[in-house]
Amino acid sequence: MRIAISTGGGDAPGLNAVIRAAVLSARNRGWDVLGSKRGYAGLLGDDDVVPLTGESVRGIMAHGGTILRTTNRGSPFAYPVRNADGSWSEVDRSDEIMENARNLGIDALISIGGDGSLAIAQRLVDKGMRIVGVPKTIDNDVSGTVMTFGFDTAVNTAIEAIDKLHTTAESHDRVMVLEVMGRDAGFIALYAGIAGTADVILVPEIPWAMEKVCEKIRARDAAGRRFSIVVVAEGVTMPSGDVGVMGESLPGQMKRVGGVADTIAREIQERTGKETRSLVLGHLQRGGSPTGYDRLLATRFGGAAVEAVAAKKWGHMVALQSPHIVTIPIVEVLKESKRVEPDHDVVRTARAVGISFGD
Amino acid sequence: MRIAISTGGGDAPGLNAVIRAAVLSARNRGWDVLGSKRGYAGLLGDDDVVPLTGESVRGIMAHGGTILRTTNRGSPFAYPVRNADGSWSEVDRSDEIMENARNLGIDALISIGGDGSLAIAQRLVDKGMRIVGVPKTIDNDVSGTVMTFGFDTAVNTAIEAIDKLHTTAESHDRVMVLEVMGRDAGFIALYAGIAGTADVILVPEIPWAMEKVCEKIRARDAAGRRFSIVVVAEGVTMPSGDVGVMGESLPGQMKRVGGVADTIAREIQERTGKETRSLVLGHLQRGGSPTGYDRLLATRFGGAAVEAVAAKKWGHMVALQSPHIVTIPIVEVLKESKRVEPDHDVVRTARAVGISFGD
Amino acid sequence: MRIAISTGGGDAPGLNAVIRAAVLSARNRGWDVLGSKRGYAGLLGDDDVVPLTGESVRGIMAHGGTILRTTNRGSPFAYPVRNADGSWSEVDRSDEIMENARNLGIDALISIGGDGSLAIAQRLVDKGMRIVGVPKTIDNDVSGTVMTFGFDTAVNTAIEAIDKLHTTAESHDRVMVLEVMGRDAGFIALYAGIAGTADVILVPEIPWAMEKVCEKIRARDAAGRRFSIVVVAEGVTMPSGDVGVMGESLPGQMKRVGGVADTIAREIQERTGKETRSLVLGHLQRGGSPTGYDRLLATRFGGAAVEAVAAKKWGHMVALQSPHIVTIPIVEVLKESKRVEPDHDVVRTARAVGISFGD
Amino acid sequence: MRIAISTGGGDAPGLNAVIRAAVLSARNRGWDVLGSKRGYAGLLGDDDVVPLTGESVRGIMAHGGTILRTTNRGSPFAYPVRNADGSWSEVDRSDEIMENARNLGIDALISIGGDGSLAIAQRLVDKGMRIVGVPKTIDNDVSGTVMTFGFDTAVNTAIEAIDKLHTTAESHDRVMVLEVMGRDAGFIALYAGIAGTADVILVPEIPWAMEKVCEKIRARDAAGRRFSIVVVAEGVTMPSGDVGVMGESLPGQMKRVGGVADTIAREIQERTGKETRSLVLGHLQRGGSPTGYDRLLATRFGGAAVEAVAAKKWGHMVALQSPHIVTIPIVEVLKESKRVEPDHDVVRTARAVGISFGD
Repeated sequence: MRIAISTGGGDAPGLNAVIRAAVLSARNRGWDVLGSKRGYAGLLGDDDVVPLTGESVRGIMAHGGTILRTTNRGSPFAYPVRNADGSWSEVDRSDEIMENARNLGIDALISIGGDGSLAIAQRLVDKGMRIVGVPKTIDNDVSGTVMTFGFDTAVNTAIEAIDKLHTTAESHDRVMVLEVMGRDAGFIALYAGIAGTADVILVPEIPWAMEKVCEKIRARDAAGRRFSIVVVAEGVTMPSGDVGVMGESLPGQMKRVGGVADTIAREIQERTGKETRSLVLGHLQRGGSPTGYDRLLATRFGGAAVEAVAAKKWGHMVALQSPHIVTIPIVEVLKESKRVEPDHDVVRTARAVGISFGD
Repeated sequence: MRIAISTGGGDAPGLNAVIRAAVLSARNRGWDVLGSKRGYAGLLGDDDVVPLTGESVRGIMAHGGTILRTTNRGSPFAYPVRNADGSWSEVDRSDEIMENARNLGIDALISIGGDGSLAIAQRLVDKGMRIVGVPKTIDNDVSGTVMTFGFDTAVNTAIEAIDKLHTTAESHDRVMVLEVMGRDAGFIALYAGIAGTADVILVPEIPWAMEKVCEKIRARDAAGRRFSIVVVAEGVTMPSGDVGVMGESLPGQMKRVGGVADTIAREIQERTGKETRSLVLGHLQRGGSPTGYDRLLATRFGGAAVEAVAAKKWGHMVALQSPHIVTIPIVEVLKESKRVEPDHDVVRTARAVGISFGD
Repeated sequence: MRIAISTGGGDAPGLNAVIRAAVLSARNRGWDVLGSKRGYAGLLGDDDVVPLTGESVRGIMAHGGTILRTTNRGSPFAYPVRNADGSWSEVDRSDEIMENARNLGIDALISIGGDGSLAIAQRLVDKGMRIVGVPKTIDNDVSGTVMTFGFDTAVNTAIEAIDKLHTTAESHDRVMVLEVMGRDAGFIALYAGIAGTADVILVPEIPWAMEKVCEKIRARDAAGRRFSIVVVAEGVTMPSGDVGVMGESLPGQMKRVGGVADTIAREIQERTGKETRSLVLGHLQRGGSPTGYDRLLATRFGGAAVEAVAAKKWGHMVALQSPHIVTIPIVEVLKESKRVEPDHDVVRTARAVGISFGD
Repeated sequence: MRIAISTGGGDAPGLNAVIRAAVLSARNRGWDVLGSKRGYAGLLGDDDVVPLTGESVRGIMAHGGTILRTTNRGSPFAYPVRNADGSWSEVDRSDEIMENARNLGIDALISIGGDGSLAIAQRLVDKGMRIVGVPKTIDNDVSGTVMTFGFDTAVNTAIEAIDKLHTTAESHDRVMVLEVMGRDAGFIALYAGIAGTADVILVPEIPWAMEKVCEKIRARDAAGRRFSIVVVAEGVTMPSGDVGVMGESLPGQMKRVGGVADTIAREIQERTGKETRSLVLGHLQRGGSPTGYDRLLATRFGGAAVEAVAAKKWGHMVALQSPHIVTIPIVEVLKESKRVEPDHDVVRTARAVGISFGD
């Protein structure tokens, strides 16, 4: 038996722990393991395919990143190719992957990636390739699993940032706006905001208005709490009617340097008169040594992926349905993404302890 | 409406977050909140009962310990009283609690504690007191809930310790034996051992033999891995036949200073000839600022406890059944404790990545 | 004896530790201690003057920020006052401070602040006020002292950020540009860059050129190191002749949102063709719990400040001249600021281990 | 030019950073570098001598331990050899080292170690070997240098432990006794105790009495502070007349399992009636990722050691005399060890903020 492993999309703390567990579990069964470098690039012959042994994965449990490298570019079904005139086209190179995999004697592939990677995996499965998926999203927005690895680390990184901003905000009577990851789902903002005792949390799933945010800040001020912490998911947008007092339409603003946090901070300062600063946490959330939770979950995913290969669960993804790891069909997972439910007990408790969602 | 809150048993990171969320949620509903200091001592008139407001819980989210203090001593049903001759008797003071609670106008009590505290709560409920429970155990051994707060922090503290021992073990070719909490359940040892890449994990739920542990260490040595990390739950005991080569019966040994880790370390050194050191992590696991996971879970428990009071769920305990917080009857919880299941996927994966359980 | 304490300028981890040590030391001598809120605002009657006791400073050692609050605005010698027509003027309110201090029975003031605060303190000393200074600068740019508190914490925060960016940079073959504090002095960039194994460090004290930076990145790429980490002090500017290939004059650029890091990142990406991202660490460097080093240094400063008051060292500042705390005249300190010396052994070693300074 | 590097004695965070800086600096000069594994064992032919290149030291800056391994056993001048009858003798193998070094073409040796290693280095220098020393002691007890690497990390680890014990001590009204490293010098106990706001600090340099310790604890109790934290250096002993109330002579006690902390804890509990627990921090202090301070200092030491080799400073040790790294003759260093000076400003400030030294 010979399997291959690939990692695609943005990196997340715990990727190496998945790789390590999968390699050790597979070697333990007497299997060969290959690693495709930079997503499918290795299998496409554009990068290396390397043998993975116990030695290869020694000491990587606690390391962020992925020893297989990763990339955000290039579905094999629409692979960018530069034309003679310098322009770009997209070509379907999925057959190449399958042929190369056959030539390398690969019996099955463990594909670790997010929604995009899982969709590609499913299309390859449909063509006959034997793939087991491992969900990877720092935003925790893949459905079918209670949690994905990397999320807990990102949340703790965000909490640490809030803790730090807290003391300086309080010392200077300032409003601090912190932008965290979450293009479509506000889980990081929600969890870190509650745990960091933010005063306002803005997420894509709950419509909000700038004036409500300012009301909360003013109410705190009136009660002698002269600082406020606002945590914002990067993916928030404003209702179309809400034009900034600075004469700017906010949604369009959001794309520019400094991000949504900067825009919101300037609006707050303008409207409330309070000194307001913003910070974009950015890539810090993807990096670093995974927390215990993420190391364990990632290890369980890696071990379960090898078990799924042994059980020939092609087209399935490993998932946490507490307290067990299960496998579910990728097609089921792709039907919908996970989002913050506005009436979930987490949101309800956040409101109960006094957090405003700007609504 | 006036409620009281008490914390009993050993402290756990997140206790203050539960108190904070319960106080803020209750005050938000317009309720009065009192805190009984040092478990039931406050309600027994042996310590203070203090009003709890938003001001009382400001800034405590990230703090370990409990602002209400706690105690391991004294069920109100068998309260220690010193006699005139200096000896001790136990008396039932449960009626006093109920009378004092009535006199203080307390409509309901939120009792935060472990198995022992929950059993007491149930007995008071049986007598007519209105109580909602919040489970607290750093060992994660309360059934009915996927997780308890404090456990994640303890696991991360243990992982950090393993990470630190790792480098020194490797530099000196040593065996390191780390004893972590877990009197009856080996969850901390199991989770921290996997995440910290221990070589051997010993838990109360899986019978083990010293010779198997030494075999693993010798096998690593033979493979050029001249150091090993052994993680031991404090509650492990040895099969009766396994007498130490040093002429000592091990089970009896376990009670003495230095704990089980010291005994096991000396056996390993004697049997393998390898320099072996032990460390008891002890109270470090109870302390410190809670992780993001624990801050969030504790906040959810606190908020849900107030909702449970509003819903008159007397004799119920809040619990995590991912992804939701639910309430379950305390009598159900008390029927059995949670233990590591030897065939759980976590154990299976641990074995697959090469960890020995000494069996 | 009655003394007052004030904190001015940006906050720095360790401020509370100074206050705590000064209060406890002074109380221990039987002195009264007052705290002037928000710099001199308290003493000017625009904010509170509060009594400080052992109780006031309990538990604040590990807390970032300052319990006395602080402000960047308003020298008492040129205090902003709003005129009837809405415009602003500046008035000299230094006499008010002295009169209020007299009225409050204040015998001496401990002023904790940076260059600006020390200069103000000296002017008040010149008018007859009895002041002892405690240097505070997160940039470590006050002369006369080997180190200032807050700097070590800021450096560790920056290192953690670099560590995190490292794994994601390596996984994605990216260049990462991290902007850290240091308006005039590059100590944070230098120390954190070395400790975080940055590839390029840019500081205000060493002239650099964009092309040299790109050369280093290209050389690493050619050697198979397909990622690079660039650490930049916020105060760097480019030689006037070095116009960006994007048609922008860089020095002017530096002021805009996203800061110098963003500009440099875009230039690197344009010139090398490598995917490049930037991050501004910003206020995270001011916040958080002080490191052991900063807690100790700040405590020593606080204790020494009280000793200096007892010794009537008016117009002196406490300073670390390892291994001792000494006092030096503020006028000496104000003569010049501390800067990174380009031929210091730290810089020499950085070059020896392969770090480029872009020169 | 070809140099060798060895690490001896207990490991300390920063060892790898020294090795890394020395290797990169030396390679940068075009030199060959060899590593002697396990102290002098490599050079004695009992272990490997390995080539060290840029690749060998990649990514080790942040890692605890030493890639060269280390050992506490065996001066080459009195090397343990097992006789035919199983007993041990000691033989002088120093000539072998010199001959092997010559055969390997080694021009100079960088020896990283503590007092013992430096003394051995000096004896080899006296025989004509060309050696530059780098001081290594986690206890900070080598004279001639303001600081040694590893100490700052150990202090921060101890502070973290105190912070954790604090919350649990306070919640349970307990006395906690924490034993930290420091066989002859109490720097770790002193620095960590102050920064962690301990109530009592016991160091070998300051004679103390158990009754004075108990007085402090009782005084706090009387003032409503019902918990206390006692930090003890492992090397403390009691004045000969002070026999424990439990009928035990304390000095002899100190050797047994559980260490001095356990003995002191039991005495405190016996004498004050307060529940008292002890914890031995042990090897946790040697492990883990070095702090920023240690990474920088170790890097400077490594770079300076190569400069010292280039300058032919045989028999010299690199040292920090802030703000510069200098070289000083090892014979000077060996004349006396560094100890806590009882009248140093650090001790004076500790007393001023209310810490008892048990005297």
